[in-house]
Amino acid sequence: MTVRVGVIGAGWIGQEHIRRLTETVTGARITAVTDIDPGRAAEAAEPVGARALSDGAAVVAADDVDAVLVTSWGPTHAEHVLNAIAAGKPVFCEKPLATTAEDCLRIVEAERAHGRRLVQVGFMRRYDAGYRQMKQVIEAGTIGEPLIVHCAHRNPTVPESYGTDMAALDSAVHEIDVLRWLLDDEIVSAQVVLPRPTSNRSEHLRDPQIMLFETAKGVRIDLEVFVNCQYGYDIQCETVGEEGLVRLPDPAAVGVRTAGRHSTEVLTDWVGRFRDAFDTEFREWIAGIAAGNEPTGPSAWDGYAATVISNATVEARRSAAVTTVDMKPRPAFYGGQA
Amino acid sequence: MTVRVGVIGAGWIGQEHIRRLTETVTGARITAVTDIDPGRAAEAAEPVGARALSDGAAVVAADDVDAVLVTSWGPTHAEHVLNAIAAGKPVFCEKPLATTAEDCLRIVEAERAHGRRLVQVGFMRRYDAGYRQMKQVIEAGTIGEPLIVHCAHRNPTVPESYGTDMAALDSAVHEIDVLRWLLDDEIVSAQVVLPRPTSNRSEHLRDPQIMLFETAKGVRIDLEVFVNCQYGYDIQCETVGEEGLVRLPDPAAVGVRTAGRHSTEVLTDWVGRFRDAFDTEFREWIAGIAAGNEPTGPSAWDGYAATVISNATVEARRSAAVTTVDMKPRPAFYGGQA
Amino acid sequence: MTVRVGVIGAGWIGQEHIRRLTETVTGARITAVTDIDPGRAAEAAEPVGARALSDGAAVVAADDVDAVLVTSWGPTHAEHVLNAIAAGKPVFCEKPLATTAEDCLRIVEAERAHGRRLVQVGFMRRYDAGYRQMKQVIEAGTIGEPLIVHCAHRNPTVPESYGTDMAALDSAVHEIDVLRWLLDDEIVSAQVVLPRPTSNRSEHLRDPQIMLFETAKGVRIDLEVFVNCQYGYDIQCETVGEEGLVRLPDPAAVGVRTAGRHSTEVLTDWVGRFRDAFDTEFREWIAGIAAGNEPTGPSAWDGYAATVISNATVEARRSAAVTTVDMKPRPAFYGGQA
Amino acid sequence: MTVRVGVIGAGWIGQEHIRRLTETVTGARITAVTDIDPGRAAEAAEPVGARALSDGAAVVAADDVDAVLVTSWGPTHAEHVLNAIAAGKPVFCEKPLATTAEDCLRIVEAERAHGRRLVQVGFMRRYDAGYRQMKQVIEAGTIGEPLIVHCAHRNPTVPESYGTDMAALDSAVHEIDVLRWLLDDEIVSAQVVLPRPTSNRSEHLRDPQIMLFETAKGVRIDLEVFVNCQYGYDIQCETVGEEGLVRLPDPAAVGVRTAGRHSTEVLTDWVGRFRDAFDTEFREWIAGIAAGNEPTGPSAWDGYAATVISNATVEARRSAAVTTVDMKPRPAFYGGQA
Repeated sequence: MTVRVGVIGAGWIGQEHIRRLTETVTGARITAVTDIDPGRAAEAAEPVGARALSDGAAVVAADDVDAVLVTSWGPTHAEHVLNAIAAGKPVFCEKPLATTAEDCLRIVEAERAHGRRLVQVGFMRRYDAGYRQMKQVIEAGTIGEPLIVHCAHRNPTVPESYGTDMAALDSAVHEIDVLRWLLDDEIVSAQVVLPRPTSNRSEHLRDPQIMLFETAKGVRIDLEVFVNCQYGYDIQCETVGEEGLVRLPDPAAVGVRTAGRHSTEVLTDWVGRFRDAFDTEFREWIAGIAAGNEPTGPSAWDGYAATVISNATVEARRSAAVTTVDMKPRPAFYGGQA
Repeated sequence: MTVRVGVIGAGWIGQEHIRRLTETVTGARITAVTDIDPGRAAEAAEPVGARALSDGAAVVAADDVDAVLVTSWGPTHAEHVLNAIAAGKPVFCEKPLATTAEDCLRIVEAERAHGRRLVQVGFMRRYDAGYRQMKQVIEAGTIGEPLIVHCAHRNPTVPESYGTDMAALDSAVHEIDVLRWLLDDEIVSAQVVLPRPTSNRSEHLRDPQIMLFETAKGVRIDLEVFVNCQYGYDIQCETVGEEGLVRLPDPAAVGVRTAGRHSTEVLTDWVGRFRDAFDTEFREWIAGIAAGNEPTGPSAWDGYAATVISNATVEARRSAAVTTVDMKPRPAFYGGQA
Repeated sequence: MTVRVGVIGAGWIGQEHIRRLTETVTGARITAVTDIDPGRAAEAAEPVGARALSDGAAVVAADDVDAVLVTSWGPTHAEHVLNAIAAGKPVFCEKPLATTAEDCLRIVEAERAHGRRLVQVGFMRRYDAGYRQMKQVIEAGTIGEPLIVHCAHRNPTVPESYGTDMAALDSAVHEIDVLRWLLDDEIVSAQVVLPRPTSNRSEHLRDPQIMLFETAKGVRIDLEVFVNCQYGYDIQCETVGEEGLVRLPDPAAVGVRTAGRHSTEVLTDWVGRFRDAFDTEFREWIAGIAAGNEPTGPSAWDGYAATVISNATVEARRSAAVTTVDMKPRPAFYGGQA
Repeated sequence: MTVRVGVIGAGWIGQEHIRRLTETVTGARITAVTDIDPGRAAEAAEPVGARALSDGAAVVAADDVDAVLVTSWGPTHAEHVLNAIAAGKPVFCEKPLATTAEDCLRIVEAERAHGRRLVQVGFMRRYDAGYRQMKQVIEAGTIGEPLIVHCAHRNPTVPESYGTDMAALDSAVHEIDVLRWLLDDEIVSAQVVLPRPTSNRSEHLRDPQIMLFETAKGVRIDLEVFVNCQYGYDIQCETVGEEGLVRLPDPAAVGVRTAGRHSTEVLTDWVGRFRDAFDTEFREWIAGIAAGNEPTGPSAWDGYAATVISNATVEARRSAAVTTVDMKPRPAFYGGQA
């Protein structure tokens, strides 16, 4: 069975996923595309033999759409996801699930009411081979109970449009999700410490930032977010446990010796860093739908948690104080006690 | 356009490629399968919706077969490949192209007579990200003209059926192909040096072996083939040039610190080591056919060269002497002067 | 000229330095030793041909003592150092210079009054090859202005006698000194964050701890102190600057591949980790005295700063609040503006 | 007891060892120096308070010389070493022990007649921490019986005076010695394979060379000697055994990330690479003499073996044939059966 996917939002990431579902992932076909710019929708739809539709509701409603992919502007996510749930169709929503906690909760409630998981949120790091190996090592007990996680999230540069809040909302949100999953734990507070800013930044941007998180089990996480580090796109993660530690590998690259130095390339591009993770994410999503299974990736609840925690991190920076994450109890539907 | 592939040979590697063309590579569909064991053909064909056919000729001739994949027993390769050429159909042949130089040359002649490249031989290392990076570094001139290549090809163990000649014919043949491509050069002589044998081997097997090759340009290659090294599947390659060197990376793996040691996993399995290379190999092959292009991978001529050189390596071991590779001049059809 | 050294305190570290000055460092001779336990003094003195004296004052006063080495119990350091200054003799004092800020300041004032530097404090990391390379890289401008430093200080285990304050006073004090030197900057505040404690510890001990420091220039430092990490003695330091980063190397060790893993040894012992640093520290100290120069190592002021900052770190942990370091202005005598 | 050392030969390496025995190694004093250039002898002797003597015989005979260090021109080594043996004085001879097998044997015979070991040959690699770790790993049985050793010996450049034979006599001789010791085995044949020469060399020099050795136990060694590799001074050694492998580490160096690359320094200088090994070599030599022990380092027999094997390697290159090493049976005096 080929899963027929309708795409809402044909910007850069939408086009990238259209290409991925067409050229890289088997078992899927793009049948419908919409975008706020109808021309862009048509341009994206035509080469893959899909129809350009007028709006998200039309995509969700289309008979030849089995599953919905939401890659539109963040503030519109909630509406499209709620539509998909109402239609009983699986929906993959790029992060964030919604920009407010309230909207996330509306999605959570709608899905619970539906009674079966339909929503997957696009946190691709859970599909990265390194993080998966790290999770296996932790779960095997090799390093004992986790106590501390040290992380760094570095981009070479960001455009002028990247604002100070985005360090939490757009960048750190990836670590927030992957660490909750890695540790099987919940983040309960956030603090932000601000080093002197780099001179290589837009004037309005506070960069770098150090974010400190505490989990329910008492694990402490420090995360450097530095989006103008110049030298490369570099994701570091080291989990320290009672008996040892495990560290994310650098991407494999040939070693070169010339002129008194041994060197390897550092990627400068997050697309290259997580290409395989994106591919695996969509391959597993499509295969699950084809098999009639509920999605196993980041859930609506995870999307809610990520939004609440990243919002709390913004608040922590603004208030310069340790900020408690104000999260509802996790419902049993999502594996919780409530 | 979906490329309809007929498969000749449904053993382990055939099944692996059927799975790959079905689940991992887009744009292809298996339509026909044959095997010397009809039951095995049926078992492989059924789940992917293909027909089981009586023999290779039937697969080549089938109307719903656009391209042929030969994964049968080595000595039968030549016949199937010649059939495909006669039918004017693209054919991917797992190594070896043929077990004798004569059969390889018959294929080469048939393809030349056909006037358009149809044959690709399954040397997957050319599609490995590490080797490709290495080739880029060499071609960029970063290390200057290559002078020496050091290689190791290690398997943890091999079955009883693995014989002494197979170190050259089945193992080293991968290095022989990839180094010809990497260096854009030809191997002109071979010598084999035999260390004391490991005690971890079948009694009939000479293991390890050190193979020494010289190229037309005077590059010297040393290759350790050690197929019972116990500790893992480990492929090493270092090219030393006039200004520097470039070395294949180890596969990325999380670093773990416990009990006084920092460690990373060494793969124990060649399938895992070259999974991405196999995927890329078939993705590019299918995409080329879909686009109506001639194949760009290892050619029939490369298959001929690999057979001649690996046979010369066997002869070098038996004679304990430096053995000249007796190769025909490369025809212009394959980029040569002849 | 051979520098004749008198040693006050013949415990483990005293004996280690006696051995070092006798067997490893040229240009020095131990002539006098004292200890609170006279038997231990005699035992340490005899094999190196030194006299055992009754107390520290006698060592300082001895005619055949050119320079004094203080390796006694911390609370006694101030007295011996002040004696040495009064006698106008160079004195090397193991850390801490003194256990209270007041005593440190008395030493600082005495040395200023003397008008020439006599005191060196035993912070050996400034002599470690890795930290020295890191300082060169920073000073060369290779990574631009430093913004953040990530550190870890891990011991496999500590004895029952190791108390919670010692994480700052005995362990972190090394990073405090070396980072002030590395960054040529001053630490102005401290905060301590407490992860869940490891189960591998004495019940009275809070372990691990994460210490956060801010410098006068706005650099932010995070330091994990984990003294029961089980797996090894592991010192990590990474300085992130505006244009790049520089990271301390792991000690060189042979790589071993067996049984599916590539591994290298992690040291389990700080003595081995900093043996070369200790040797260099004393080699440079003795050479400086022999040449009639003032010491160039950590000064009395550095000793004062380390004590004030590590005490503030203890206070920060107790108060669970960001604690400002209350340090006097640096006198011009020590390179300051005051 | 201070060991009083007389030095024969005050060229670069002689001066380096005079400095080492004066400044770095305790327990020794230089008392006499000679050189073919009397001015150079005086210049070297004066700063360390030694006398300049007329010739090597005078140094050996001097009452205030307990031990002799021979750092003169290679062809003169035998005479000075024989003199020292005749005088019953310990003698450290920089490699080679002698330039001909005959002269080496005369020394071996003289030492046997004397009845006690006096001679140590200056092969410093046995004192390198990496090689020592490798030997421990091998002897612990971690990698099983050794089967193959891969080595590289690379210098950035050599002066015009470096001739083709020196690749074996001056460069490879270090691997020849250290591998005999590492494997506790004897080299029985040599072959040399010549890659295309680098263009970065003197016209008269054949560079690089690949040397192949076989040991009595059947271990096979391949050694790349490349003395104009441009990029650095780089010593590689990997021993492959029946159960695993062990590899020499690169020297520890800070990792730097800038401009899309992670890099570490490669040394460009053999003096820096083996400084610690030289220090340990002399520290152990002096301590042994002070303790009245026979030397434990490379013996006169090892010096003989190195000369015979490196001469055979030169012959192998000239004859382009596998050359058997023609070595006498090892006398019981040197741990052999004869």
